[in-house]
Amino acid sequence: MADEKLPKRSEDFSAWYNEVIARAQLAEHSPVRGCMVIRPNGYGIWELMQQALDKMFKDTGHENAYFPLLIPLSFITKEAAHVEGFAPELAIVTKGGGKDLEEPLVIRPTSETIIYSMYAKWVQSYRDLPILLNQWANVVRWEMRTRLFLRTMEFLWQEGHTAHETEQEAEEEAIRMLGVYRAFMYEYCAVPVLIGLKTDSEKFAGALRTYTTEALMQDNKALQNGTSHNLGQNFAKVFDLQFQSRAGTLEYAWNTSWGVSTRMIGGLIMTHSDDDGLVTPPKLAPVQLAIVPIYKTDAEKITVMEAAEEVFREMKAAGIRVKLDDRDSMSPGAKFFDWESKGVPLRMEIGPKDVTNNTVVIVPRVELSKEEPPKPGRKQKLFVGRMELLSRVPQLLERLQSQLLENAIARREANSIRGVTSYDEMAKLIERDAGFIYAGWCGSAECEAKVKEETKATIRVIPVEEFRSEKPPAGCVVCGGAARHEVVWSKSY
Amino acid sequence: MADEKLPKRSEDFSAWYNEVIARAQLAEHSPVRGCMVIRPNGYGIWELMQQALDKMFKDTGHENAYFPLLIPLSFITKEAAHVEGFAPELAIVTKGGGKDLEEPLVIRPTSETIIYSMYAKWVQSYRDLPILLNQWANVVRWEMRTRLFLRTMEFLWQEGHTAHETEQEAEEEAIRMLGVYRAFMYEYCAVPVLIGLKTDSEKFAGALRTYTTEALMQDNKALQNGTSHNLGQNFAKVFDLQFQSRAGTLEYAWNTSWGVSTRMIGGLIMTHSDDDGLVTPPKLAPVQLAIVPIYKTDAEKITVMEAAEEVFREMKAAGIRVKLDDRDSMSPGAKFFDWESKGVPLRMEIGPKDVTNNTVVIVPRVELSKEEPPKPGRKQKLFVGRMELLSRVPQLLERLQSQLLENAIARREANSIRGVTSYDEMAKLIERDAGFIYAGWCGSAECEAKVKEETKATIRVIPVEEFRSEKPPAGCVVCGGAARHEVVWSKSY
Repeated sequence: MADEKLPKRSEDFSAWYNEVIARAQLAEHSPVRGCMVIRPNGYGIWELMQQALDKMFKDTGHENAYFPLLIPLSFITKEAAHVEGFAPELAIVTKGGGKDLEEPLVIRPTSETIIYSMYAKWVQSYRDLPILLNQWANVVRWEMRTRLFLRTMEFLWQEGHTAHETEQEAEEEAIRMLGVYRAFMYEYCAVPVLIGLKTDSEKFAGALRTYTTEALMQDNKALQNGTSHNLGQNFAKVFDLQFQSRAGTLEYAWNTSWGVSTRMIGGLIMTHSDDDGLVTPPKLAPVQLAIVPIYKTDAEKITVMEAAEEVFREMKAAGIRVKLDDRDSMSPGAKFFDWESKGVPLRMEIGPKDVTNNTVVIVPRVELSKEEPPKPGRKQKLFVGRMELLSRVPQLLERLQSQLLENAIARREANSIRGVTSYDEMAKLIERDAGFIYAGWCGSAECEAKVKEETKATIRVIPVEEFRSEKPPAGCVVCGGAARHEVVWSKSY
Repeated sequence: MADEKLPKRSEDFSAWYNEVIARAQLAEHSPVRGCMVIRPNGYGIWELMQQALDKMFKDTGHENAYFPLLIPLSFITKEAAHVEGFAPELAIVTKGGGKDLEEPLVIRPTSETIIYSMYAKWVQSYRDLPILLNQWANVVRWEMRTRLFLRTMEFLWQEGHTAHETEQEAEEEAIRMLGVYRAFMYEYCAVPVLIGLKTDSEKFAGALRTYTTEALMQDNKALQNGTSHNLGQNFAKVFDLQFQSRAGTLEYAWNTSWGVSTRMIGGLIMTHSDDDGLVTPPKLAPVQLAIVPIYKTDAEKITVMEAAEEVFREMKAAGIRVKLDDRDSMSPGAKFFDWESKGVPLRMEIGPKDVTNNTVVIVPRVELSKEEPPKPGRKQKLFVGRMELLSRVPQLLERLQSQLLENAIARREANSIRGVTSYDEMAKLIERDAGFIYAGWCGSAECEAKVKEETKATIRVIPVEEFRSEKPPAGCVVCGGAARHEVVWSKSY
């Protein structure tokens, strides 16, 4: 298998996706239907995502806490829209300690209900607000069709839950966290998401408004990468989350919740990887630099390994996540192939001539436009003096990080079709997976449902101003009525 | 409540424990029986524990991964001793997605079975070994009598799972991780555990040998703080975890597993806290230093706050976890009380005179023997010049960390009774909760069971040499036969 070519993205995107994950050893299916095992290479990406996000949450005033995995079934059913959305996906515990339970317990599909029931105990007065908590947790949703990272029965995520004195504060919080997600996705994931609002039919079960981050995958389907909800007073009312206001009256608190999950790893893969395998943005790469020593004779081995170990120590001391590939049983070519499949941003080759010349060769996983271009049909090879490494390696990692974002933005723009006014044209564009299709929408659920039924595309997002067209369409692409919004249509994961 | 005294440890240890947790806002009971909510102050301790342990695991060559929460019931029943131990504690999912499941799923009480079933797929040859993985996860064990942190239906933990080529390597790994736990408990928790072996009747369900870390709480009961198991080939045999050996034969791998949990937070509380509330070792304190500004007039407030903010910034820049308590609604006295209850290692007072003199007052949460003693009946107050803060604060935190360990060792030693040879004497010592009782044991399960039945004490540990008496007893304290081991008896949590 290791020598076989990957399936091509253009030929079988789905097979390609699965094989990229398998070769990079990111995750695999477990004996439990729909649940995955996240292997160290995949979990390493998640750990780096967690570190970056956790810092961003704390910098915006949030603290971590932990609430129970199990929720009484009666809690879930309290909020009407919430139970309607989640009831079909519940995993239910009916036995514990050898006995049938009096009340079944649900494995959390999300934690609004249990968390706001606790907030109700903690809050008496406006002085107890805001509450700004986040939890890192696993959740279970009984999905029928599962795909590694994108949709699994159990997944890992963070869920932020906040309570506020006023509607405005809650709205500001929901928007703030949308901004945090956006910054994380651009700066760390190099995934250029569109941001904006979900329509009522696509919003979170129980929310007033759902803000979303939507990414365009290489097969031109959209992936919802993370959401931030203004929950209004919906949960406060059913869980009696009340407080005495500054004016002395008893008021319901205003809540928000926001979450991102291991699904983002799927989005990362489908945004950057290529027909050679995984590509990881340097900021989220568990290994940023792989050093491959090249030698034939024993004498060469001694000199080359000495140099390789020196470079390894130098890089490690400089805070680079580096591996020295000293596996004896593999040829250099097989190692190149292996690191390529694993998406390591930079590969460094050190051979006997390099030692003599006091240089190394660095091959970036993705071609860098700011470096000398490669010979036609070859990979980009950068010859770097040993003395320059301490400045060049961080610089190349930064360039690769920016390059991935640039490439992804260029691809998104090339696959964004604006100003579509004919329904037939839109249907054809959707049919051939053209990408993000911008069109006018009158705001009616009927027009939205018609498109979904006939084309399988949905409104992914009502984009914020930044992403709107210069001249937004005047009419609804479906009914021709006055457009209330410019929206983005696409098929999605 | 905030003004009321805590229950005294000596009068009602259990009520004291609960109230310490409540006042420090570490955790509380949830609406789900036996499950707790870990509040930010408690979760902050867990995060610091995780950071320190995670680094220690990685430094010893381990990587993190994640395995499913749900395990097919049939997996659990494969290993005879394992199922016997865990069957009574299982939470069982029988419905999912609105349907009855064909095979019930168990919420992991521990993950040996699902993990070794995956290792069996990953391992073909000795070249694929060792596998050295850890996961941070939640587990559920259906406990009837629960206590916050000490015994909860759901708890957070890490579980390491390794597979090795030889019995010796597995044994070395089990011992290595015991050493990691020991180092963590001494250096971070300041909890001076005894280490050694569990007896067969107390070992992990499915293990060959269980190594343990046993701490002595202030009520003289033992707390098992973490365990490391040599699993032999027990799980490898039932999950076909086989590999081709160097000699070309097909062999079963050798496994270890090891875990510590949020239970350690309970151990921390019951080791260090006092009748004024929580005491936290500086290395695990989410807030290490609380600055309380003291002023009466508005003019004083301006000068004092300016100085307090300057000190705050200085301390923060120096990497101290510091809070400036600028709450307007509370008196300084109430703030002192609050920080004391929360176990913050150092409290700093800055008043108008301090600003004039360019000094501050520091009150350590626990009296430091290396600093000037307090006036009789008063708290230790240290007068520190502003210019010295950058060196004095880290020094005081280190001294407090060492002081807590010293105090705990002294208490453990004062409550260790060695050379007990009469059964009646031992029974009386156990009756009055005398502490760790060292006595001889012939090695028979009958003698062990008799003591447990008659006194409720168990053999906590067969200690390693370091903790054994200079002259170990010659006879079994129960039957008088030849002693095979010197063991430590105690009642326990």
